[in-house]
Amino acid sequence: MSGDRRVHTSVPDTETAIDRNLPEFPAAKPIDEDNYFRLHKPPPYLSQISRDVADFINYHHLQKRKIVLVTSGGTTVPLENNTVRFIDNFSAGTRGATSAEYFLENGYAVVFLHREFSLLPYSRHYSHTTNCFLDYMTESEDGKVEVNAEFQKEMIVVLRKYRHAQNNNLLLLVPFTTVHQYLFTLKLIAQELSVIGSDALFYLAAAVSDFFLPSSRVPEHKIQSQESGGKLVVDLEPVPKFLSRLVDSWAPISMIVSFKLETDSSILIKKAKGALERYSHQLVIGNLLQSRKYEVVFVTKDSERWVRLSQEQVDAGIDIESLIIPEVIKLHKSSIEEKKKMGL
Amino acid sequence: MSGDRRVHTSVPDTETAIDRNLPEFPAAKPIDEDNYFRLHKPPPYLSQISRDVADFINYHHLQKRKIVLVTSGGTTVPLENNTVRFIDNFSAGTRGATSAEYFLENGYAVVFLHREFSLLPYSRHYSHTTNCFLDYMTESEDGKVEVNAEFQKEMIVVLRKYRHAQNNNLLLLVPFTTVHQYLFTLKLIAQELSVIGSDALFYLAAAVSDFFLPSSRVPEHKIQSQESGGKLVVDLEPVPKFLSRLVDSWAPISMIVSFKLETDSSILIKKAKGALERYSHQLVIGNLLQSRKYEVVFVTKDSERWVRLSQEQVDAGIDIESLIIPEVIKLHKSSIEEKKKMGL
Repeated sequence: MSGDRRVHTSVPDTETAIDRNLPEFPAAKPIDEDNYFRLHKPPPYLSQISRDVADFINYHHLQKRKIVLVTSGGTTVPLENNTVRFIDNFSAGTRGATSAEYFLENGYAVVFLHREFSLLPYSRHYSHTTNCFLDYMTESEDGKVEVNAEFQKEMIVVLRKYRHAQNNNLLLLVPFTTVHQYLFTLKLIAQELSVIGSDALFYLAAAVSDFFLPSSRVPEHKIQSQESGGKLVVDLEPVPKFLSRLVDSWAPISMIVSFKLETDSSILIKKAKGALERYSHQLVIGNLLQSRKYEVVFVTKDSERWVRLSQEQVDAGIDIESLIIPEVIKLHKSSIEEKKKMGL
Repeated sequence: MSGDRRVHTSVPDTETAIDRNLPEFPAAKPIDEDNYFRLHKPPPYLSQISRDVADFINYHHLQKRKIVLVTSGGTTVPLENNTVRFIDNFSAGTRGATSAEYFLENGYAVVFLHREFSLLPYSRHYSHTTNCFLDYMTESEDGKVEVNAEFQKEMIVVLRKYRHAQNNNLLLLVPFTTVHQYLFTLKLIAQELSVIGSDALFYLAAAVSDFFLPSSRVPEHKIQSQESGGKLVVDLEPVPKFLSRLVDSWAPISMIVSFKLETDSSILIKKAKGALERYSHQLVIGNLLQSRKYEVVFVTKDSERWVRLSQEQVDAGIDIESLIIPEVIKLHKSSIEEKKKMGL
């Protein structure tokens, strides 16, 4: 028996998902987008989300408010059914949470489809920092918990914005953890948003896994490491290119913005253009892991344009999203006008 | 602290960890514990941590206080050097953070070696909940941020305990992200703790990956998915069995408690006993993913004993750690007495 371990392909139940020999793989054959949704069960909580999303969209539709779906954070790919191990995509959710704030400030209603426990609009200022929750607090002379004086001035501004969004029902939080939940929820929200047509904007900032483990191959229990020398081999299938479905059939009239995150600057623009050509949507925002907080590149069919913070802006702690969002909104406006001319 | 800490490579750029064909593996040969530390560079920030840990230990050594190292949260295994993707182990850090609180209440000083952004002692009550930070706040009539009245009563109790630990220098927070950082930091702390011999307790609740990707195989840049049909095959090496080094040479006189988390109840005790036999340490606490908040099993050389919350305790929201820690402390006391008799 070899020390190698591989997670296997659609196998009868009697077989274990763990094969310590090298299995013979069928030729890699990507799962088609539609097949993905046929072959996998939707998350059980989806009907509840469906109601919340429909209510939210109808409410703003009546008020003729534009709605943006912001996706944020990384998706996980469980390697076991009772999940102990999973593959994750790096993302604290900073881009998504910050962008959502600027959309709200610019009059949009926001559906925030985010990785559970990733950063949230407004609260992001106080989580995932070196300060823990209680470091913001102090005990007053009369034995009450108080927010430290040093945080008061900024926090009241943030709190008011957060309460404004809440009180006006402008922000709907929808969580996901796995790539599976993400795909089903995205499809659902897209179909609900089709009601408002060109007034809907998709701003897909989540770090979605390119690979997944089909449910037929996910072992029920924790993968056991061997007593000695056991290696783990995980082989994953490419995630269906759901973006083509989004553009073609779920939300054909809406404007779609996707992100391309790379670490190698020499291939960033090529990859962004590739995505744009493949899916024929409106805009890819390219960014490098190393410099993503200071510069991004807008890649459209006809142009590529860098949006950068100046050194003064960096020093002043300006969010690059405060430059990105107004640019995206301009493009959304043009897109709406264009669609109207076409009678859509 | 930033997510910018990366595992280092000393590798030819030409190698890649990803093989889309069936690779020919060299016979699996586990990397020896000592070799691991020889072949990999320590995290660059380790010398700073070393000073903090030494100061903390000396301070409590002078006061003859017992010190527990609590490890908590899951380790990551980066699949790329500029980390976009990584394998993670499921753990919010609840066990570790809660246990640390009960050690503090029982007079121990705590070194808390935790996954960055996982739950922290005391603050855990207010993070990773459905409430976001700002949901705890309200604006007073005179425009100040206040903690909501409904949270005051409980929060003041928690805040006082937290401040007590802080003001008396009883809690040292040391973060990690990758399994690599975890191993190097654990070794460092263990060696520093050897100064206090049997007064040191190791409570290893972190979910440490069994597998890792040797730095020589970590690609520099984001793994590219192929245009079509590209599968991802990741093959990982077993993590060196550092526990044997901990028991044999880093901390031979200290008491060591490890955890065994399984999802399959039929193998839990067997796995726990196996670990105990392999490493000859004092105690394995076994738990199942499904029931870990209500029951655990203490497995020692001579016995196995379940520790369970009663239904009333579950309903009253009692932490099972409030039962676990006093039991562990009893065993630690016996262990100290035994070592003293042996003149250690």
